[in-house]
Amino acid sequence: MKIALDAMSGDFAPISTVKGAIEALQEIEGLEIILVGKEGIIKEELKKYKYDTKRIEIKNADEIIEMTDDPVKAVREKKNSSMNVCIDLVKEKIAQASVSCGNTGALLASSQLKLKRIKGVLRPAIAVLFPNKKEQGTLFLDLGANSDSKPEFLNQFATMGSKYMEIFSGKKNPKVALLNIGEEETKGNELTRETYALLKENKDIDFYGNIESTKIMDGEVDVVVTDGYTGNVLLKTSEGVGKFIFHIVKEAIMESWISKLGALLIKGAMKKVKKKTEASEYGGAIFLGLSELSLKAHGNSNSRAIKNALKVASKFIELNFIEELRKTMEVE
Amino acid sequence: MKIALDAMSGDFAPISTVKGAIEALQEIEGLEIILVGKEGIIKEELKKYKYDTKRIEIKNADEIIEMTDDPVKAVREKKNSSMNVCIDLVKEKIAQASVSCGNTGALLASSQLKLKRIKGVLRPAIAVLFPNKKEQGTLFLDLGANSDSKPEFLNQFATMGSKYMEIFSGKKNPKVALLNIGEEETKGNELTRETYALLKENKDIDFYGNIESTKIMDGEVDVVVTDGYTGNVLLKTSEGVGKFIFHIVKEAIMESWISKLGALLIKGAMKKVKKKTEASEYGGAIFLGLSELSLKAHGNSNSRAIKNALKVASKFIELNFIEELRKTMEVE
Repeated sequence: MKIALDAMSGDFAPISTVKGAIEALQEIEGLEIILVGKEGIIKEELKKYKYDTKRIEIKNADEIIEMTDDPVKAVREKKNSSMNVCIDLVKEKIAQASVSCGNTGALLASSQLKLKRIKGVLRPAIAVLFPNKKEQGTLFLDLGANSDSKPEFLNQFATMGSKYMEIFSGKKNPKVALLNIGEEETKGNELTRETYALLKENKDIDFYGNIESTKIMDGEVDVVVTDGYTGNVLLKTSEGVGKFIFHIVKEAIMESWISKLGALLIKGAMKKVKKKTEASEYGGAIFLGLSELSLKAHGNSNSRAIKNALKVASKFIELNFIEELRKTMEVE
Repeated sequence: MKIALDAMSGDFAPISTVKGAIEALQEIEGLEIILVGKEGIIKEELKKYKYDTKRIEIKNADEIIEMTDDPVKAVREKKNSSMNVCIDLVKEKIAQASVSCGNTGALLASSQLKLKRIKGVLRPAIAVLFPNKKEQGTLFLDLGANSDSKPEFLNQFATMGSKYMEIFSGKKNPKVALLNIGEEETKGNELTRETYALLKENKDIDFYGNIESTKIMDGEVDVVVTDGYTGNVLLKTSEGVGKFIFHIVKEAIMESWISKLGALLIKGAMKKVKKKTEASEYGGAIFLGLSELSLKAHGNSNSRAIKNALKVASKFIELNFIEELRKTMEVE
């Protein structure tokens, strides 16, 4: 099992990526990693660790796609960037999966450009596991691969999302809901009303109906389908609201010594909360519908997040995820 | 100054509504209130308080529109409902504003059906002040009046929103942003791209550009414009994420007595946080673009929220808000 890791990607690269790779080797048996990026820098970083040298190789890539780069332009012009080379390695079947924390738009463009879609899939979607009140997360898609969507795309996202939860989380008959602004069939905009009609007839899923975004974190459903524009707004709203709440809580607490003392006493509990809500625990996003595995970890990934993303990628490989998904989508 | 209050609306009516009305009288000089609903019940409730009886009258309305009622049907069939009668009072210019905590869809339908649009306004929008890191909130619209929107609607929402902040908050040249999934002009879906082009040319606003939903609570802009579907998802996501965070924080805190003690010590600080984030502090939503004032307070309004909604309504009346808005929209 070989995974290509974009060693130059993310806010804390290459320290976080190399450390995460080493930690992943310790936890995942049979894993081999190709660290992709500037060879000299990676070698220097690797010197910090003791590891089985047979399980890590370096693939030199001189360029780096920055977060501020124009996605499509960067993919075309920075051919020898660590991100592009990672996807190339997957395309050439040298690696079975790629993990990058880089520019989401560029990674999507590179993955879509270089990797084929699974036969029958109209559009790939960005899928992410969200935390919820229950043990297993809720799978959300699309979180931004297609800003202009069609009902047929969303219908396929539902099928792919359901299959994802079945294969990856071992969930039987996952409940699939359509994000909407009301529970009734007639609610929403043109896109959601037309999608509802298709989902009702979709035999590959257990359709729950509409779900409002007040309830998405209750864990009542396993998969929530929406268009990429709305999904992206939802994802970023969650992030914004989370940050805002912690900001004003901190501000209020700092106003008196009593509450400062209180804050010290709940520190342990807050760590657990952070762990439950942090993106790093969920191993990042996957471009669902492509015929190879391309994973995106959060831009601010620490080594733990990198390790978790590598774990998720390994699990996808072990479960033969792409082949399983292919079986469903090709009969469609 | 006379305001019609839907005394039967909201989770805690009529206790909350009548109490809120009494509190409002104490704070707002020159205010008179028409309590609309079942006369017997309201009279019974009023017995609890001492107040200037000249400032409160009761308008009997036998029916109640429930939260579960179909909006359009309820408005048509429950003609003598407290909500419909409130809007009628405004329509007949007996009251200068209406406040209700009832079914949003029904209130929107009733207001749209009975009250005219300001000349030149294509569609009314639901506008709400959101808390942010700064003193003044950020005005969001549309939060659900139009699930299928057009660029021209959004362009008008921008003008109306800007005018709102100017008149209501005394803000000079309010910054107006378009909600989007990226900052560049080319980002987003068809609707946002076409709207961007219009906003750039809109001389009635100070256009900031696109804003992502991670940043909406920073307080960098004064008005955020979006379509009713996305706005409604955003509103409900904020609510859902907020509830989720407080849920898991509470769960984590309850696990040990140390953190339970800590929680006691930060109780005062948390009250401040609650106050800052609660809808009740912001006086509810307004249907912007109608030629009369119809305000919607949160369904779970306590008396304080009712009082705040009445305060906001009074301020709108005092500022001659509708006339001011009319001046801008009619020249459009």
